[in-house]
Amino acid sequence: MPPVSTTIDLNADLGETTAGNPVADDAAMLGMVSSANVATGFHAGDPHTIAATLAAAAEHGVSVGAHIAYHDPAAFGRRFVDYEPGMLASETLYQIGALDALARAQGLQVRYVKPHGALYNAIVHHEAQAKAVIDGIKAFDRDLPVMLLPGGVACDIAERAGLRVIREAFADRGYNPDGTLVSRREPNAVMHDPEQVAQRVLQVAATGSVTAIDGTEVQVQAESVCVHGDSPGSVELTRSVVERLGQSGITIASFL
Amino acid sequence: MPPVSTTIDLNADLGETTAGNPVADDAAMLGMVSSANVATGFHAGDPHTIAATLAAAAEHGVSVGAHIAYHDPAAFGRRFVDYEPGMLASETLYQIGALDALARAQGLQVRYVKPHGALYNAIVHHEAQAKAVIDGIKAFDRDLPVMLLPGGVACDIAERAGLRVIREAFADRGYNPDGTLVSRREPNAVMHDPEQVAQRVLQVAATGSVTAIDGTEVQVQAESVCVHGDSPGSVELTRSVVERLGQSGITIASFL
Amino acid sequence: MPPVSTTIDLNADLGETTAGNPVADDAAMLGMVSSANVATGFHAGDPHTIAATLAAAAEHGVSVGAHIAYHDPAAFGRRFVDYEPGMLASETLYQIGALDALARAQGLQVRYVKPHGALYNAIVHHEAQAKAVIDGIKAFDRDLPVMLLPGGVACDIAERAGLRVIREAFADRGYNPDGTLVSRREPNAVMHDPEQVAQRVLQVAATGSVTAIDGTEVQVQAESVCVHGDSPGSVELTRSVVERLGQSGITIASFL
Amino acid sequence: MPPVSTTIDLNADLGETTAGNPVADDAAMLGMVSSANVATGFHAGDPHTIAATLAAAAEHGVSVGAHIAYHDPAAFGRRFVDYEPGMLASETLYQIGALDALARAQGLQVRYVKPHGALYNAIVHHEAQAKAVIDGIKAFDRDLPVMLLPGGVACDIAERAGLRVIREAFADRGYNPDGTLVSRREPNAVMHDPEQVAQRVLQVAATGSVTAIDGTEVQVQAESVCVHGDSPGSVELTRSVVERLGQSGITIASFL
Repeated sequence: MPPVSTTIDLNADLGETTAGNPVADDAAMLGMVSSANVATGFHAGDPHTIAATLAAAAEHGVSVGAHIAYHDPAAFGRRFVDYEPGMLASETLYQIGALDALARAQGLQVRYVKPHGALYNAIVHHEAQAKAVIDGIKAFDRDLPVMLLPGGVACDIAERAGLRVIREAFADRGYNPDGTLVSRREPNAVMHDPEQVAQRVLQVAATGSVTAIDGTEVQVQAESVCVHGDSPGSVELTRSVVERLGQSGITIASFL
Repeated sequence: MPPVSTTIDLNADLGETTAGNPVADDAAMLGMVSSANVATGFHAGDPHTIAATLAAAAEHGVSVGAHIAYHDPAAFGRRFVDYEPGMLASETLYQIGALDALARAQGLQVRYVKPHGALYNAIVHHEAQAKAVIDGIKAFDRDLPVMLLPGGVACDIAERAGLRVIREAFADRGYNPDGTLVSRREPNAVMHDPEQVAQRVLQVAATGSVTAIDGTEVQVQAESVCVHGDSPGSVELTRSVVERLGQSGITIASFL
Repeated sequence: MPPVSTTIDLNADLGETTAGNPVADDAAMLGMVSSANVATGFHAGDPHTIAATLAAAAEHGVSVGAHIAYHDPAAFGRRFVDYEPGMLASETLYQIGALDALARAQGLQVRYVKPHGALYNAIVHHEAQAKAVIDGIKAFDRDLPVMLLPGGVACDIAERAGLRVIREAFADRGYNPDGTLVSRREPNAVMHDPEQVAQRVLQVAATGSVTAIDGTEVQVQAESVCVHGDSPGSVELTRSVVERLGQSGITIASFL
Repeated sequence: MPPVSTTIDLNADLGETTAGNPVADDAAMLGMVSSANVATGFHAGDPHTIAATLAAAAEHGVSVGAHIAYHDPAAFGRRFVDYEPGMLASETLYQIGALDALARAQGLQVRYVKPHGALYNAIVHHEAQAKAVIDGIKAFDRDLPVMLLPGGVACDIAERAGLRVIREAFADRGYNPDGTLVSRREPNAVMHDPEQVAQRVLQVAATGSVTAIDGTEVQVQAESVCVHGDSPGSVELTRSVVERLGQSGITIASFL
């Protein structure tokens, strides 16, 4: 369990602009978060807009992670693909290396890895894919942290392999009492009330736990909280959460 | 002008297997050449087969270069694309970083860069693209050599930027008296006679020059000779050239 | 020269949503225009969102054209690619066939073809590509109209080949006295004043001509006017133009 | 059960040349088979080489089917992708339409549909994907036959939807007594003996059945036999089978 803390890491998905069409408000978000999960071109983004996002991250002093994904831009990396594990490991390594080269040109480096979308969800259960991702990360750097959903097989495999695991919570998602996320098909899947969302982040900062939809407090050992910037509403929501954290004396800072 | 030499570098395009369909006989070629221009996935290749080619290169002690290309797999990187220069620079950096990560996992590293296909030809004349490629290489490593066609603007820009330029000759292509290649639409564009091809390589090793189709000796300052492995005939031709070099006491070795 | 008219065709680029990220407000635009240039998946769009746009077009009684493009989604079809003409002709045919199948499932059919982006601009001058596009259209249907920029070689080649050419004007672009568009790098390239834009459309409806930035009236024989829906501002601008047309007694109707 | 027959349909996968790199010997195969499963560009092939394959099919009087696939050229359509069913239906329609346009330019039309690779195997069991494929086919033409592996849910769904199902057998694959194919991971998965393969085809022609590896005769109601042309060995094997059929008085002819 992480110690009670007066700091919390906020992470957001950035660098997803594709073919000139922006997905999130990267500039606004980089002024608020401490960690940027930057796309690698596999689910979204292209090298040049990624480079621009990295330059802005450097300016804001935001820590950069490789947001690795299935190579499936047509579906934004959001559907399961039955990869041959060797291919997935090699693609993981390829993506981290590509992003790290772009980052170093901005005086940064890749400081962690976060799987995206369907890959993120798959490796909660899919052992062969989880192992492939961890293998790919370790082939790049045996000391690179990996950001994951708490409770999945990927956490176990990563820790057995000696990697630091950053467990994350979601600022605006409903939780079941067992610590899983409420399905988007159900009510209570997403929280829209700024006060409620801010409370979530404050709770994670203080205890690493979240309160489930039935009131149960679930210890998820979260060291980071994921916020969104892909709609005007989500940017505003994040802004109000950041203000609330400031009022409560919580500092937003990377987990590193 | 390079000094008269008893060694010569042979380079070949490898790692271009795509979707499981091989293009060249990588295994045979890696037993013969000293430098492998390894695809990065932009015109051909995928991370996993690239990794396998790199592992084989490591086994054979072959030096590895990044075979950077336009992102145009549909045409194998063989047609001009009017890139925005910033995008081309970022893609250059992305490709080198990705390949270098795969190479380091095999105990290698990217030791040089060679542009492929239409990009290789474009930067002989296209200043903005040439500058973008050189910018991308320098952003990765200010000391990384670049392999180019002699006589183009890319050579000038690279040398002014402080990069080492490796000029290459083609083992089996006809040359015009001005040092340009005979167009593939004309007779004498390609040489098929093993003895004639071997003489070309011996001449480059000894003098850095080639003999044009009219008999003129043209000084191209070549430090490397490009050979092919993308058809049964080309592998056999390379084999006979390698044998002939051995009989002449010429050692095949990287330019590094 | 088209006859003085109390109707005018308004066309807009639609169906460009890619990986779930919308580019234009298709729903709003389909309530205002008479012709929809629907993406084919080559520069943007995917079969399923294209199908949804076609269904909405059917509902609104909007005529559908195939918005053919270079196969270059990474750049949204906005950069020149040096296609082999046979490939460009085959890709033209492929795109029209694919879109027509999706359209027929909605009780529609492809009623015209409009080249997109860099291809649209290239065939103003590039004869081989212009001929390839016209060949591809005729291979699909010898009577399918093609929408083009007035004054280019594509217009000549299309008309010599027996195709009906729909010349279009741009609602919000500045014109040079020779009928070419003011470059986006210069001032006056884009008009933002709703009244000025509405006047442009009224003038095209009445005379087929546009007024250049120096006051010259240029006859471009336009039968359609291109409007945009890819930003909140452009949707609003189009809405005010449509209102102004209604006040002037001009009916918005397809050129068919 | 199909009637005892003195004719048999032979089908092969063609048109898979990608980026100029051939996969199968299309010319040789078109001289032998009666049905060509032509790639649509989704797992392999590009519009121009597909057009060339269609022209050759027209010359040889070979019937053409749309070889629809997951949009996954990186893996040659060989891995499962968890499609949203509406997308799969739309992509099915898109592919058939695109290929049909190319075919009609050669005086042909798409006469049947055969799913490829991982999609072919998935819809043996995956009801939602099977239904999506059948929906896509019916949206194109309510009378278009579909070629499938016997015994799967796709056969049932297609027949309930009123489509004619062409069940196929494999010339060179071992069968289990329950009519499923022997896994490629086991011995007896692939037969290499020309006489044995010819016997398989003769048996299918006569009875629609195959003999399993334990000697059991399994009725698979096959109306077509799949042969391969993607290696020198497979072309030779097909040639010897065709000769053997000729000697036995069996005519190779489309199922149409």
